[in-house]
Amino acid sequence: MSDSRPIGVFDSGIGGLTVVKALRDLLPNEDIRYLGDTARVPYGPKSPETVQRYAVELAEMLMRKNAKALVVACNTVSSVALPSLTKKFSVPVIGVIEPGARAALQATRNRHIGVIGTRATIRSGAYEKALHASDNNVRISSRACPLLVPLIEEGLLNDDVTDRVIARYLEPLLCDGIDTLVLGCTHYPLLSPAIARSLGDRVKLVDSAINCALAVEQLLDEQSLRAGRSDRGELRVTLTDAADNFLSVAREALHLSFAEIELQPLP
Amino acid sequence: MSDSRPIGVFDSGIGGLTVVKALRDLLPNEDIRYLGDTARVPYGPKSPETVQRYAVELAEMLMRKNAKALVVACNTVSSVALPSLTKKFSVPVIGVIEPGARAALQATRNRHIGVIGTRATIRSGAYEKALHASDNNVRISSRACPLLVPLIEEGLLNDDVTDRVIARYLEPLLCDGIDTLVLGCTHYPLLSPAIARSLGDRVKLVDSAINCALAVEQLLDEQSLRAGRSDRGELRVTLTDAADNFLSVAREALHLSFAEIELQPLP
Repeated sequence: MSDSRPIGVFDSGIGGLTVVKALRDLLPNEDIRYLGDTARVPYGPKSPETVQRYAVELAEMLMRKNAKALVVACNTVSSVALPSLTKKFSVPVIGVIEPGARAALQATRNRHIGVIGTRATIRSGAYEKALHASDNNVRISSRACPLLVPLIEEGLLNDDVTDRVIARYLEPLLCDGIDTLVLGCTHYPLLSPAIARSLGDRVKLVDSAINCALAVEQLLDEQSLRAGRSDRGELRVTLTDAADNFLSVAREALHLSFAEIELQPLP
Repeated sequence: MSDSRPIGVFDSGIGGLTVVKALRDLLPNEDIRYLGDTARVPYGPKSPETVQRYAVELAEMLMRKNAKALVVACNTVSSVALPSLTKKFSVPVIGVIEPGARAALQATRNRHIGVIGTRATIRSGAYEKALHASDNNVRISSRACPLLVPLIEEGLLNDDVTDRVIARYLEPLLCDGIDTLVLGCTHYPLLSPAIARSLGDRVKLVDSAINCALAVEQLLDEQSLRAGRSDRGELRVTLTDAADNFLSVAREALHLSFAEIELQPLP
């Protein structure tokens, strides 16, 4: 059994390309359609009802491209819209929070996990809920790191200013005694090397993009949805508004190759 | 002749409080109503049509509070919505760009002016247009500084990380030979001390908040709209959604005192 339909991936903007990168590495034969809602980014400050409505619109656009699975490469959407997406669409829906939380629980030895993300993600408590749903005794130290996304979007991925900001954000978590850190924002894998430098050897880094891709692989296998082809799948990127500087930053840092961006303005 | 109605000031968020601070210092007897559209901030990435529509909505809310003048304490709105606001409302409308541009032209000796702002403001070319409208021969070096707003909103107003980011942004402008720098974002006056440190003595800093307040003073005098009272006027702050951390940063740094914030959700 095989299924040649593409995997549909969407995000409020460009950050979700880190999930695409992980999917490309893990499932090179799959076709991928990426949809970034650059016209309405960021979703973090918007109400849950609005985020749910936008998520359904994006998912519908991907379903019209015949997606066999929907990957929600966005923490904000994953934290509020998975139930409504799962209910509305017949294909499987995979978010970034569950897989990241699961990987963190497997990685931790001292049952003390750190979570970093945007203000909106940390305020939502989404990782706490997901972690505590599996293990009520795990300790969690979380911290909003609002400067990291702007630093990433400026392309300062390997820069001493970024290193100092990271060190400052992580210091209290390290003092708390975490042994595992979840990157709770799809932008953050672009800073994995810098964050790993700051953490040293004692703390394990959990990249939710990679873990999301692993969850997608497992699901495709379970439901016999893998593409049957042996050649490399195609990646197509659609945005709802013109991309800014960050698209080139992400493209270069992730070594992602794709043809021209398709612009699809929202109705 | 005197006029006891309040001055209405609005912005896409909290940044416009720097203009309020300048107004309070210059016109202490005036009542001020501030309206920040925190529910829909930031305006920078939105289309001009959307920004115009939002600006009219905010102005209408202030007109219902009986404003005698409308101060647009936001560069994005000032760059696209002044004509429609002026057309729609009978009271005077003052933006931040014109007064800043005029002050820069008065300050420069070598006719070479630097402008810094958000990506959206720099991309709009609004300061270039305003400067060239008065003096076609002035040279302009402009630069988007997208990290400054996040650094300000994190409260890092006097911090070596911020100093290094500022130095990096300003270096090419200083190399170009500017002798005057316009702060083209209402957040930036909160970094005036840090920016002045980085500029040294040779470059004059033009704070568009202060220059906007001077323009308001002149207009009230010309149209006999000054409040007649001798006691201190009242400042009331209304936001369209709950404020985040930045409100306390601004309030403290600007030494602004006002009663409880009023929340007025948009319809």
